[in-house]
Amino acid sequence: MFGDNLERIVAAIEKNYEADEIFFTKPGRRFPSRTAIKGLITELRRVLFPGYFGPEMLSPSTSPSYFIGQTLIDIESVLREQLILALTYTSDDRDDLVGSGNHLCGGCTSDSICEQTADICTKFFDALPEIQRTLLTDVQALYDGDPAAGSKEEVIFTYPGLYAIYVYRIAHVLYDLGVPIIPRVMTEIAHSSTGIDIGAGAHIGEYFFIDHGTGVVIGETTTIGDHVKLYQGVTLGALSTRGGQRLAGVKRHPTIEDNVTIYSNASVLGGETVIGEGSVIAGSTFVTFSVPPHSRVSVKEQEIRVRQPGERD
Amino acid sequence: MFGDNLERIVAAIEKNYEADEIFFTKPGRRFPSRTAIKGLITELRRVLFPGYFGPEMLSPSTSPSYFIGQTLIDIESVLREQLILALTYTSDDRDDLVGSGNHLCGGCTSDSICEQTADICTKFFDALPEIQRTLLTDVQALYDGDPAAGSKEEVIFTYPGLYAIYVYRIAHVLYDLGVPIIPRVMTEIAHSSTGIDIGAGAHIGEYFFIDHGTGVVIGETTTIGDHVKLYQGVTLGALSTRGGQRLAGVKRHPTIEDNVTIYSNASVLGGETVIGEGSVIAGSTFVTFSVPPHSRVSVKEQEIRVRQPGERD
Amino acid sequence: MFGDNLERIVAAIEKNYEADEIFFTKPGRRFPSRTAIKGLITELRRVLFPGYFGPEMLSPSTSPSYFIGQTLIDIESVLREQLILALTYTSDDRDDLVGSGNHLCGGCTSDSICEQTADICTKFFDALPEIQRTLLTDVQALYDGDPAAGSKEEVIFTYPGLYAIYVYRIAHVLYDLGVPIIPRVMTEIAHSSTGIDIGAGAHIGEYFFIDHGTGVVIGETTTIGDHVKLYQGVTLGALSTRGGQRLAGVKRHPTIEDNVTIYSNASVLGGETVIGEGSVIAGSTFVTFSVPPHSRVSVKEQEIRVRQPGERD
Repeated sequence: MFGDNLERIVAAIEKNYEADEIFFTKPGRRFPSRTAIKGLITELRRVLFPGYFGPEMLSPSTSPSYFIGQTLIDIESVLREQLILALTYTSDDRDDLVGSGNHLCGGCTSDSICEQTADICTKFFDALPEIQRTLLTDVQALYDGDPAAGSKEEVIFTYPGLYAIYVYRIAHVLYDLGVPIIPRVMTEIAHSSTGIDIGAGAHIGEYFFIDHGTGVVIGETTTIGDHVKLYQGVTLGALSTRGGQRLAGVKRHPTIEDNVTIYSNASVLGGETVIGEGSVIAGSTFVTFSVPPHSRVSVKEQEIRVRQPGERD
Repeated sequence: MFGDNLERIVAAIEKNYEADEIFFTKPGRRFPSRTAIKGLITELRRVLFPGYFGPEMLSPSTSPSYFIGQTLIDIESVLREQLILALTYTSDDRDDLVGSGNHLCGGCTSDSICEQTADICTKFFDALPEIQRTLLTDVQALYDGDPAAGSKEEVIFTYPGLYAIYVYRIAHVLYDLGVPIIPRVMTEIAHSSTGIDIGAGAHIGEYFFIDHGTGVVIGETTTIGDHVKLYQGVTLGALSTRGGQRLAGVKRHPTIEDNVTIYSNASVLGGETVIGEGSVIAGSTFVTFSVPPHSRVSVKEQEIRVRQPGERD
Repeated sequence: MFGDNLERIVAAIEKNYEADEIFFTKPGRRFPSRTAIKGLITELRRVLFPGYFGPEMLSPSTSPSYFIGQTLIDIESVLREQLILALTYTSDDRDDLVGSGNHLCGGCTSDSICEQTADICTKFFDALPEIQRTLLTDVQALYDGDPAAGSKEEVIFTYPGLYAIYVYRIAHVLYDLGVPIIPRVMTEIAHSSTGIDIGAGAHIGEYFFIDHGTGVVIGETTTIGDHVKLYQGVTLGALSTRGGQRLAGVKRHPTIEDNVTIYSNASVLGGETVIGEGSVIAGSTFVTFSVPPHSRVSVKEQEIRVRQPGERD
């Protein structure tokens, strides 16, 4: 149904491909697959929270060790493939090309990437039991902290806060191991379904609680202690990001110590801002300075005006 | 590709299974299925808003009664199965086990659960025509209130506010009938796709309006009258939730009377807070006290500072 | 499993169908398909950002022009079908019925709709190269502005801000061509997955930047210049919408000039509000008035109260 214009449009789009270097500078390299990474998140959750996710039901008569072992072997195979893609994509070595004919151990493209992948896989799976243990503390915190929680099972099965924390804890281990691209894809998968945006680089302690959660932003250089509670719309952010890429790696997000509660829509900003342990930050406050332990921060005499009909402005 | 570490990791994860009681205390019980519950929401919407959702098109020449009847029968079958799973999962009766061999009427696991399920189904379907009638008032409110709405059809077909209200109205009936787990799964399905989090326990009148909606939180003990309008980011929440599980069942969220409008990012908090009928709450206010009818609440002289280049701080 | 009540419920629901005119006034007309429209968005993205989305990998050895041409031909076929449905649905002409036997050029239902569809298709595809060029400026802005961005590829592949802007730019062209329903369906698809709600009618310049993004609302009569940055929770909205449908078409949302930065959770409201070029609006401000170029707007001495344990209220 196209008329004469198809040829012209194709040429113009193709010209845009040529004009910008981002499109074709890396022949033979492929991006990791969002679908595969989402599958990893789903499968790992079945191992860490058996009986909740996935079709089959674990019961004492089946062997947990067989289920865990087989599922981990499947996960490792997918993770390894995505790691090779991500490491190859970001490699500066011209020889590290997917499909270069230089296949090592089933998909690796160079000795270096082969070694990195094996090393990351070993360390990642070694970290899983500890991730699982920490997530159980998060379940406990969500159950204890929310009067609307009917049971821990309901928390595991339905709470967006737990899902976002789960994905963050997985992504953070990969981030710490220097994996490119994949941690960000993971946290954006959680962000998309929960509205909670946790930078994979953030450091977050045990018993972490996020309720409702829509609009929560936790910047990538944030540090959070144990037993911290955040409500919907809380930003732990930077004071200014006008420095752009010059600020990459600099600590620009706050430090939140143990047992701090931050109510809905509060913003705590700045890399040098420290909220002392046990402090409570009221909703809708805007905090750009440090406070000592056990502070209660609120807007001083919020001047609300209530007018009745007939009153003048 | 795993080395020696697989066995160690499996053992550690299996140990976590044992350590915490949440995983295997309920053999023979299964969680309701999120996928099945999402299917229920989709199918019910086809009955309540025919001609908008689903592949086939209703027209005067087809028989609506046949379409409604057949679809409801299909829905009932899925709902019953999920109800049995949910009631069995939360039952204290040891004999209420899925797969215990004690099958009654095609899936029920005990006389008690069989009766509860039948009773809930009857009352739920009896409530459907009234839910539909109420939803048509919501469509009207959304169309009347939004200058950007092109038509009522556009409201039905595309507005996230209507979807969240629809799911809430379904979930609320089940919540009132004492159904565990499923109402929460329903509201989280809506929350995930709209950013609007409405507790299934909330009471909400007719002609309810939510525009844009991302970040809206309506706590489970909130009461909302007729013709109420909420914009994005509004929280109807608790003053403090540090009481945790001790507050379960206590009214901790506000009462919003008829014809109240609450603009974007305002927070109205506390179980004793009553916003009198016809009041207007301005955007970004933080209201923790009651106001009489027809009040206009705003921040009193918001002290905004505007500096020009060269001016000092 | 239904008892006597099925017949009664069916009758009551069918009565609701009759009672309200929105359901059956348009026999022979069908709504556009959300699934088909989502497919359009996905396929167009493969053309505009090749090598990132879709299974196959473009490399210099394959012919980009063949890939572009074939994919555009497929897209045109789907777009045309949805345009015919949307135009027919909203047509006042009684003869414009799908399935009326009056088929012209493979699906069109009248000469008028046939011509409109062809005209819209031509203009839409003509606009694609320019949309693509503009999107590359958005990628640049997102990369330059976010210290956490690892690469432009990461921006293209994972940033919700870019996805929302991409969908907006597509939807805006269709909106400007007078297409009903489809632009709104498109922007709600983006809203649902990103929490960013951009009215298709808004005018937005080049190098547009949205970070995190959850809760951002940009009203349909907003005008935004080049090099503008918005953060999560920013509302560019109306001062009051109590005028409802009487305000349709009136400019009720602000004008944001070039090089303005608006930090998280700020609200800028009103159709006569103009934020002068180069201005910076601090987080959590509430701005309902115009400011001259290069202003810095913040809350003047935000009165935060910090109490220590033992201090009185």
